[in-house]
Amino acid sequence: MSDDALIVFTPSGKRGRFLLGTPVLQAARTLGVDIDSVCGGRAICGRCQVNVGVGEFAKHGITSSADHLSPISKVEERYDRLRGLSVGRRLSCQTKILGDIVIDVPPESQVHKQIIRKEADTRVIELDPCTRLCFLEVEEPDMHKPSSDLERVYRALKEQWQIEDLSCDLAILAQLQKVLRQGDWKITAAIYSRAPGGGNRLVAIWPGFHDTVYGLAIDVGSTTIAAHLTNLATGEIAASAGLMNPQIRFGEDLMSRVSYVMMNPGGEKEMTAAVREALNTLAGQVALQVGVSTNDILEVALVGNPVMHHLVLGIDPVELGGAPFALATGLPITCPARDLDFKINPGAWAYVLPCIAGHVGADTAGVVLSEAPHESDEIMLAVDVGTNAEIVLGSKRRLLACSSPTGPAFEGAQISSGQRAAPGAIERIRIDPVTLEPRYRVIGCEKWSDQPGFEEAIAAIGVTGICGSGIIEAVAEMYLAGIINQDGLVDGSLAARSPRIEPYKRTFNYVIREGEPRIAVTQNDVRAIQLAKAALYAGVRLLMDKLGIDEVGKIRLAGAFGSHIDVKYAMILGLIPDCPLDRVQSAGNAAGTGARIALLNSQSRDEIEAVVRRIEKIETAVEPMFQQHFVEAMAIPHKTAPFPNLSKKITLPVPKFVAPAEDGGGDRRRRRRS
Amino acid sequence: MSDDALIVFTPSGKRGRFLLGTPVLQAARTLGVDIDSVCGGRAICGRCQVNVGVGEFAKHGITSSADHLSPISKVEERYDRLRGLSVGRRLSCQTKILGDIVIDVPPESQVHKQIIRKEADTRVIELDPCTRLCFLEVEEPDMHKPSSDLERVYRALKEQWQIEDLSCDLAILAQLQKVLRQGDWKITAAIYSRAPGGGNRLVAIWPGFHDTVYGLAIDVGSTTIAAHLTNLATGEIAASAGLMNPQIRFGEDLMSRVSYVMMNPGGEKEMTAAVREALNTLAGQVALQVGVSTNDILEVALVGNPVMHHLVLGIDPVELGGAPFALATGLPITCPARDLDFKINPGAWAYVLPCIAGHVGADTAGVVLSEAPHESDEIMLAVDVGTNAEIVLGSKRRLLACSSPTGPAFEGAQISSGQRAAPGAIERIRIDPVTLEPRYRVIGCEKWSDQPGFEEAIAAIGVTGICGSGIIEAVAEMYLAGIINQDGLVDGSLAARSPRIEPYKRTFNYVIREGEPRIAVTQNDVRAIQLAKAALYAGVRLLMDKLGIDEVGKIRLAGAFGSHIDVKYAMILGLIPDCPLDRVQSAGNAAGTGARIALLNSQSRDEIEAVVRRIEKIETAVEPMFQQHFVEAMAIPHKTAPFPNLSKKITLPVPKFVAPAEDGGGDRRRRRRS
Repeated sequence: MSDDALIVFTPSGKRGRFLLGTPVLQAARTLGVDIDSVCGGRAICGRCQVNVGVGEFAKHGITSSADHLSPISKVEERYDRLRGLSVGRRLSCQTKILGDIVIDVPPESQVHKQIIRKEADTRVIELDPCTRLCFLEVEEPDMHKPSSDLERVYRALKEQWQIEDLSCDLAILAQLQKVLRQGDWKITAAIYSRAPGGGNRLVAIWPGFHDTVYGLAIDVGSTTIAAHLTNLATGEIAASAGLMNPQIRFGEDLMSRVSYVMMNPGGEKEMTAAVREALNTLAGQVALQVGVSTNDILEVALVGNPVMHHLVLGIDPVELGGAPFALATGLPITCPARDLDFKINPGAWAYVLPCIAGHVGADTAGVVLSEAPHESDEIMLAVDVGTNAEIVLGSKRRLLACSSPTGPAFEGAQISSGQRAAPGAIERIRIDPVTLEPRYRVIGCEKWSDQPGFEEAIAAIGVTGICGSGIIEAVAEMYLAGIINQDGLVDGSLAARSPRIEPYKRTFNYVIREGEPRIAVTQNDVRAIQLAKAALYAGVRLLMDKLGIDEVGKIRLAGAFGSHIDVKYAMILGLIPDCPLDRVQSAGNAAGTGARIALLNSQSRDEIEAVVRRIEKIETAVEPMFQQHFVEAMAIPHKTAPFPNLSKKITLPVPKFVAPAEDGGGDRRRRRRS
Repeated sequence: MSDDALIVFTPSGKRGRFLLGTPVLQAARTLGVDIDSVCGGRAICGRCQVNVGVGEFAKHGITSSADHLSPISKVEERYDRLRGLSVGRRLSCQTKILGDIVIDVPPESQVHKQIIRKEADTRVIELDPCTRLCFLEVEEPDMHKPSSDLERVYRALKEQWQIEDLSCDLAILAQLQKVLRQGDWKITAAIYSRAPGGGNRLVAIWPGFHDTVYGLAIDVGSTTIAAHLTNLATGEIAASAGLMNPQIRFGEDLMSRVSYVMMNPGGEKEMTAAVREALNTLAGQVALQVGVSTNDILEVALVGNPVMHHLVLGIDPVELGGAPFALATGLPITCPARDLDFKINPGAWAYVLPCIAGHVGADTAGVVLSEAPHESDEIMLAVDVGTNAEIVLGSKRRLLACSSPTGPAFEGAQISSGQRAAPGAIERIRIDPVTLEPRYRVIGCEKWSDQPGFEEAIAAIGVTGICGSGIIEAVAEMYLAGIINQDGLVDGSLAARSPRIEPYKRTFNYVIREGEPRIAVTQNDVRAIQLAKAALYAGVRLLMDKLGIDEVGKIRLAGAFGSHIDVKYAMILGLIPDCPLDRVQSAGNAAGTGARIALLNSQSRDEIEAVVRRIEKIETAVEPMFQQHFVEAMAIPHKTAPFPNLSKKITLPVPKFVAPAEDGGGDRRRRRRS
């Protein structure tokens, strides 16, 4: 009988011969088979579970069976008793090879497992975190061979985990001796592998065995901040929370916050403190939801638009408020999380995705990482609409990006009855082209306004205004009903047909709902939407010109705007270029997904950094064609032919990135100033 | 006529041919000649000055003269007018080669200049700081080629200084945009090249040209903290200051501070805060002396004994208070200075020298770097005496180190009339062997006590006690005068000859001075000195055994003890092994000098780290021979023969590293407890 045996691992197909008695985990490591382990083969963590690959025997020419593994040992029995082991599962660290065998490594036992991002999404995130846990048995101090505790920890990392080139944070040094003694010289160490300059950094320690650590994926928006607590071992989102950005007390939108700093030098420090406090509140909330300590949060990945990016980093954003819109830095940032005042594990690291340009921020980099136009064969258009629209266009061959000053109309701001998407806001609307009567749906209510019981249903919340998707549908429906013409002019002659068309300061309103508040679309509102959609379209068109294309293969609409808008109306208004409807998708919170990818996959950071370097940055403000496209795109729907007849009737302002006027026409209730 | 010319640089001897019109600085760089420059050839910094090497022409076969350089330009004239240029000096960046020429680079124009450490010391420090200044002209932002300010700074560093692989501190990012605009796109950048993991780090920026930055070399002693503000470009000490270690309020000596933490868990945080505050006070004092901002301090190099080392780093030192005396870490530490709460330039870095073992700290590493036993052909003994004596013995072939528990007697503590070396303390003493009358000298007074006018001279300060060097001389003189015998016993029969021998509790005192306070040497004082000197000698002897040697080639006595002690008396008492008197030298504050070397020379950090790794660490507590040597060394002078007859009369305690007794016999005035 041979003293060795063949072992075949599935699904990798890796195979080799090993001496009888070799532990399966050891064979796997020798062959480079990806099996997870935190305890390093001590039957504590249970991460290294495998199955006997029953159905695979014949295929690999192996004729033998499960008794070619050592029987279930006392140690495995104990593990099963304490933590549970599914039928057929073995701990590969405790199981020895006794004959030819096929071993199947289930996905959950792989370090580099793939995570489905969400239902109905074929893209996956490959798990490859920058932080890993290692259980260690550390030598005790010996006066005959004096050495420091840290040196013996390093030696254990080298001998037990083959991890070298180590450095250590001061915060860890302060805990080290107590933790070693509490754990009776057994500790779990967290190693971070992406500190600037390279090497491996000892970032956290726990006495004894510590199973799970987390990372925070954060999207800092001007309005809301969202955080996802993500298990770094499984990739799963353990908890999510959102918060209004407390900077709102300094200014409703980005440019009013920049103005605040201009008016109050040093004001950026207040805003930085406010947003950092909010980040800590969120960290506390998500940790509480899962019932873990914030000390178990070891990483942060963060995205945000350029102004938010600068304010989180403590950089005065005033340069972003005027030409030439110079970022202090757009480079990716890897820094101790405590440098951003995070009150999580003191050794935690933060990663801030790169910005692309002065108006195209780390949030857009997140969208790129999530939607991956750089891997696409066909031309993809990715649009993230906020106060500005951030636009990325291209394919794996070439990528361009720009920002277009849509203004806040698409968010319902600077619209007479506008409001943020919140309960009470009209979000859907249809207008009967004959009667000109509207019917609409309100956020927080399932019924349409013409269904029985609607008024009772909305009595509690009321109908308070019209949100971004609502105003877009309203204008498009007004166009389809003939209330406005191609130039966006409200047809006053219709006042004879319907009382909903009412004169107002030499123009006409379309009244959607009487009551308190009274909700109407004014001529100015139509103009605001025209300006916004013209800016968006002009930005897209400019990039299409640069690429020399007339149509795009697919469109991704990111962010809240993209999630709420009905694509059909976006097409009717001409917000986006022509594209088969089924090729237009909402990308959800793609920026946040990008942050999560960066959190979970070390390589993805290299990837997005390289992609951002090669993205061609276009500044719309210096592109003469942008203005021309803008003028052309004012009409409804836009004129797609090159150099069509211009609409002569409207004198168009050149769009600028400026602070909205103080009296800003829009929803005054929300326009607070501190 | 040839269109190129020969240029020879002295003292390097480097030579090459260059096209006529080539600037001398450019030729020097091409040839790798070491010429300094901060402004990068813009005639601002004046660091690149050279002379025409008049006397050297013939030697190099060059027949021509100073008119083979371009005439003094307007730019040089302006520099001369504004900042002054010595006769014959040229700015090499402005001076062009017009014919064969010899150029002499004076030492002050070299980057790697050598600094004489102190008068009468042949060793030099080669200047090679980790931080360098670079004047930059940065491209302005251009909307046609959007890029961030930081990226353009990096580009300027690459193009103008060939510095790549850059990263940047958040603190710098927050200043960057303002500084660039204040300086009209001309800034001076400081680049630090030793951050963990490598690469170059942008650590500070100033608008326009900034000439000088500083580093702090710090020696944190248990009693005093000393700081030297050192010009990083010239290596000169610009200012020095010292301060009592404020931790004294938690305990007079090391072990009482460790006890404080044992009695008051978390007490290490108070001590860390106290010492860090003192470091900032010192930084402020030295900056004020020179009239510069603490913002101009860009580096810190720090040494200290293990307990001070741990407390500065924020590490609880209790493990150092008992066997096995495990350090949390002995590894060198490079960290942002702000992590140690330094309020200097926010981008400044700190370097803490490695510790050697649990009782042999970074201060001893500093002594090694300063005295360089690892470069010595003959065996060197370096001793730094404090509460413990830290001992290094060896040569370039092999080095050993240990710590020996001398107790604080050598510092005048636990001696009945003992006090710290300060005005009023007896520091020198002679005893007439016939009359047994003493004469002495007091710190702060030039006269001996038997000289006319002594009493008047000391009236203001008084004679307050006896310091470490005084008690050593007193005991040695008592032995030479026959007042004590070889075993240290006071000969009571002499009371008949002199009233200075007086009975006291079954033993006898030797009274040096009547008055208030009355100053005497008691039998217990003699015992304390015997214990201390026996411990010191036993430690040295143990290392000599390990090396297999019976004598040493040279001795360096470091620290205040080494500076004050009269070597002859150290020999008489048998503190140190036999060695020709002229081979025994005080090393001054060698630990602090070591810190200064580490501050000024990047390579020296690698050097001391490598040396510390290979030093053999001996723990006296587990060496049986240590106890035997200790017993033998109690006699005066020590018995040098192997295994001499032991002194049977004295029952010897085994020395331990313990906190001194509460009632500690010594100078009660200083024994405060909080």
